[in-house]
Amino acid sequence: MNTILQQTFSVPFRYPVCFTEDLFDPQNTILADVLRGERVPKVLFVIDSGVADTHTQLIQQIKTYAETFKAVFALAAEPIVVIGGEACKNDDTLYQKIVEATHLYGIDRHSYLAVIGGGAVLDMVGFAAAISHRGIRLIRIPTTVLSQNDSGVGVKNSINAFGKKNYLGTFTPPNAVLNDFNFLKTLDDRDWRAGISEAIKVALIKDLSFFEWLEANGKALANREMAPMKEHIIRSAKMHMDHISGKDPFEFGSSRPLDFGHWAAHKLEKLSDFRIRHGEAVAIGIALDSTYSFLQGRITQEDLNRIIKLIKTLGFELFAPELQGEQLIKGLKEFQEHLGGQLTIMLLEKLGKGVEVHQMDENLIHQSVALLQSFQEKSNLITS
Amino acid sequence: MNTILQQTFSVPFRYPVCFTEDLFDPQNTILADVLRGERVPKVLFVIDSGVADTHTQLIQQIKTYAETFKAVFALAAEPIVVIGGEACKNDDTLYQKIVEATHLYGIDRHSYLAVIGGGAVLDMVGFAAAISHRGIRLIRIPTTVLSQNDSGVGVKNSINAFGKKNYLGTFTPPNAVLNDFNFLKTLDDRDWRAGISEAIKVALIKDLSFFEWLEANGKALANREMAPMKEHIIRSAKMHMDHISGKDPFEFGSSRPLDFGHWAAHKLEKLSDFRIRHGEAVAIGIALDSTYSFLQGRITQEDLNRIIKLIKTLGFELFAPELQGEQLIKGLKEFQEHLGGQLTIMLLEKLGKGVEVHQMDENLIHQSVALLQSFQEKSNLITS
Repeated sequence: MNTILQQTFSVPFRYPVCFTEDLFDPQNTILADVLRGERVPKVLFVIDSGVADTHTQLIQQIKTYAETFKAVFALAAEPIVVIGGEACKNDDTLYQKIVEATHLYGIDRHSYLAVIGGGAVLDMVGFAAAISHRGIRLIRIPTTVLSQNDSGVGVKNSINAFGKKNYLGTFTPPNAVLNDFNFLKTLDDRDWRAGISEAIKVALIKDLSFFEWLEANGKALANREMAPMKEHIIRSAKMHMDHISGKDPFEFGSSRPLDFGHWAAHKLEKLSDFRIRHGEAVAIGIALDSTYSFLQGRITQEDLNRIIKLIKTLGFELFAPELQGEQLIKGLKEFQEHLGGQLTIMLLEKLGKGVEVHQMDENLIHQSVALLQSFQEKSNLITS
Repeated sequence: MNTILQQTFSVPFRYPVCFTEDLFDPQNTILADVLRGERVPKVLFVIDSGVADTHTQLIQQIKTYAETFKAVFALAAEPIVVIGGEACKNDDTLYQKIVEATHLYGIDRHSYLAVIGGGAVLDMVGFAAAISHRGIRLIRIPTTVLSQNDSGVGVKNSINAFGKKNYLGTFTPPNAVLNDFNFLKTLDDRDWRAGISEAIKVALIKDLSFFEWLEANGKALANREMAPMKEHIIRSAKMHMDHISGKDPFEFGSSRPLDFGHWAAHKLEKLSDFRIRHGEAVAIGIALDSTYSFLQGRITQEDLNRIIKLIKTLGFELFAPELQGEQLIKGLKEFQEHLGGQLTIMLLEKLGKGVEVHQMDENLIHQSVALLQSFQEKSNLITS
């Protein structure tokens, strides 16, 4: 009586993740190479205000580059500058303005949005690109450590809604990611440091040798040396890319193993009204879940000491007053709801290896918070 | 100096497209089978007001079904009724209400939205599902001929914006499509007929034998006989599914061969302020591009006569005053912009075989419109 047809297909995605310097130097053909095709596509640039303010020549450089490669691509309009940081994801009129710009400037599905900025602006403009015409081509040009070594190379975009981080968004791979290391030189110390927490995260759950490399280079990274910064970005980005392509790029399952330390981090950002930046919150979240792993007997005291020491060496805070009280615990439920399915939290089995658990003990979380506060205040690590 | 990493992966999709009757009869396990899993997921139903008004017992049937299968799934809340037809895609507060409902009722990425209605409501609710939590699971329950044989089995969702049809949307496959033929019995004659135009379309460009079957069954279809209606829906849906899985499901390329007759149809809907429904506009669009194909010498007069005769047999109009004047031509440019890339229009090479062209002659379009008007007014076909 019933007829059941099974629909089955796979959608292939492919994009380059490039690491370069002086992206808009007319000698540098990376961007032109990405845009080169049968047609001369329109490209609409959107720039993070933090970047535009610091790099006052950037818009002129883009125009000169476009003039040089006018046989390859055309600027759709004057580059648009949008406010940077989480603010651009909290105000939903901002993504709507980008959507409206695609309408006004006739940006079709074979044209490009090229977005230059930190992770928040990449997320917001990526969302606008993903839903306009069911997907306009997107070139991400991340300008922060955090976006170059982690979020910018991935497949997600989002804005915030209902007080929930990343409530609206899609999984939509970009057409290219172009990381220009020169943007990092003008970051303030907080942003220089913040992104390194994502590298600590991926090292702790996946790669002991990378963790050891971070320990060996922690001081140099804190001292703003470029060579280890570049090396850690490429290494971290590669691990992130391998993880995405390895299984479940669009996260249909319950597990999200790359989110070590993130349940608390997301909540902390919101509780602090985004005073604490994402990378800073991730450092605290890593410290928290590492301490919790220690209190559960999963990792040794020496392991925990090494983690805390690295986080401190890099200059991160270990504690924030928002960790205290009952609000933090709500982050667990929100994290579960955002992922869907069973609560799945990554903890540490040992340095370089994560383990998934499906519940957390509230008292043990509170004890972990108390320990973090003591690490922070006394500047002392646990001693046996 | 530069480092370039290539990211490559494929995302697999799989979903059943079922054809049944009495979907919410507790004896019918199709829906429960789709929802059955390790967890008991929440399901939020959204119902087209046109369906809810006609099927006054539907909400109670859903509740009884949910009670019967409470070990399998749980209703997240009272079903939500939304206005049906294109109106639900034109008012952007309506999709926002669905998004807000997912927030209010804690619909996570492993919970379901189940949407019952015509193509417009499926499109709108599908868009809300696609962007909430970066994708909530979606069950489509199409209730019209058009949505059962064509749009409902596909991978698109959308709302309208800036006066442009489907300006916002994504390519997001549903988790299941459940077609209940009983919903068709209560359609008014216009909606019963409208969807058949999509079958004519796919037959004309892909399958002569299906076109001949439609000719043989045209009168029975017009007389609202259920047997040929069911057969044509399954056959048409299957062709649509095969086309999607065959190549380029997310339409990264320029070509969209299934859109025969649609450039004019989209424009006509808007020019008529949606007085002309999508399926009716597609019938006119098919007649127009078939006539154009004839005037270009691509198909014979006999071929054109057969097409016009079938469209008339089914009770469609062939002409609308909005076809006259210069506005229609603008639809070509809008169609190109929506697809992106080069203008690509499907014409007929012969009955059952389409051919893509990359330009259309304005004068020939006007002449085609004039011929359509004469077919309509004189009820006469071309005679040699």
